[in-house]
Amino acid sequence: MQSASPFRTPAQKEAERAAKRDAVLRAAVRMFNERGFHATSLDDVAASLGISKRTIYHYLANKDQVLLECITIGLHQLLEAAAEARREPGDGRHRLTRFLRRYAEVNMEDFGRCVIRTGVEALSPESLPRYRQLKREIDDALRTMIQEAIDDGSIAPVDVKLAAFTLAGALNWPARWHDPDGQLPVETIAVTMVDILTGGLDPRP
Amino acid sequence: MQSASPFRTPAQKEAERAAKRDAVLRAAVRMFNERGFHATSLDDVAASLGISKRTIYHYLANKDQVLLECITIGLHQLLEAAAEARREPGDGRHRLTRFLRRYAEVNMEDFGRCVIRTGVEALSPESLPRYRQLKREIDDALRTMIQEAIDDGSIAPVDVKLAAFTLAGALNWPARWHDPDGQLPVETIAVTMVDILTGGLDPRP
Repeated sequence: MQSASPFRTPAQKEAERAAKRDAVLRAAVRMFNERGFHATSLDDVAASLGISKRTIYHYLANKDQVLLECITIGLHQLLEAAAEARREPGDGRHRLTRFLRRYAEVNMEDFGRCVIRTGVEALSPESLPRYRQLKREIDDALRTMIQEAIDDGSIAPVDVKLAAFTLAGALNWPARWHDPDGQLPVETIAVTMVDILTGGLDPRP
Repeated sequence: MQSASPFRTPAQKEAERAAKRDAVLRAAVRMFNERGFHATSLDDVAASLGISKRTIYHYLANKDQVLLECITIGLHQLLEAAAEARREPGDGRHRLTRFLRRYAEVNMEDFGRCVIRTGVEALSPESLPRYRQLKREIDDALRTMIQEAIDDGSIAPVDVKLAAFTLAGALNWPARWHDPDGQLPVETIAVTMVDILTGGLDPRP
């Protein structure tokens, strides 16, 4: 074992700072999701961590920045899901399905829920371009994966733009209705919803 | 033609009052949808109608009541869509499809957009029970129609609850992305989306 020096290295200090900032964001996002963004103050967030609001300001400039960071984390999780799915072997339908399942899961997790529940209305005008850019990248990734699956014949030809909106809407919605204390595992819900979307409602012979 | 008496009958007065209240709600819902509920004041709404805020108070008690009325109108449109679809002849799939198409259309119209865009977070605690009751009735109607279509064999067996959430989410989402000045007619968007949901993505033989 290393000797426990009371002096931290710069790397240790940086890691500690990142961990504290992360803890603030995690506490904040849960309160935004449960009480609503407007009804949550940074005093509430600080109190839930047993720290003062002044301490939060060491890591984050204000409540707007806290929200923008929470939303950015959620959107990055969706982008990461797209990137992971695109690295999968198999046909276009397989990659699309992997993305859609993870997309649904993210929307049942803290940061993804915040993207949908708090969302664009609460962001300050300065934060909107970053938000819109990330949303556009996610939408582009989804449309590209749908088009690739049509092109290799693994899904039926559909209007790509409307299909992307249809799928995204269906799988954004769990952010509104899913109860984190519910019985069904998130993975089961995601698989079932994506099965409904890929299989459709019409009976198959 | 009737002689134009300068004295209005009680029925005429009531109709005029209803028309004025309706005009206030229509002006308000558009501003809520375009600027956001929190960024809209009743002064703005009054100004857009060339009246004073004091005049609005003859018809509606406060901004909270304006929002509750707008949301109630949107939710009633969805309930009416369910009732109309259930009166249709044909099999369960036909009735469900009719409901889903109209459901999508309502979410591209002013009051339906407001239900999704402004929604529950902005409602006062006193307004929540009425909102939740109407949401529950709509959800029940959708689940009943899915179950009836499964029972008569016109759609495939699915998890009714998750199917209802999947369909509702997909068709709520146009309230967020649909551009009222867009090129495609609302009816075309609704039919295409419902076709994607009923047909699914998987190729059919």
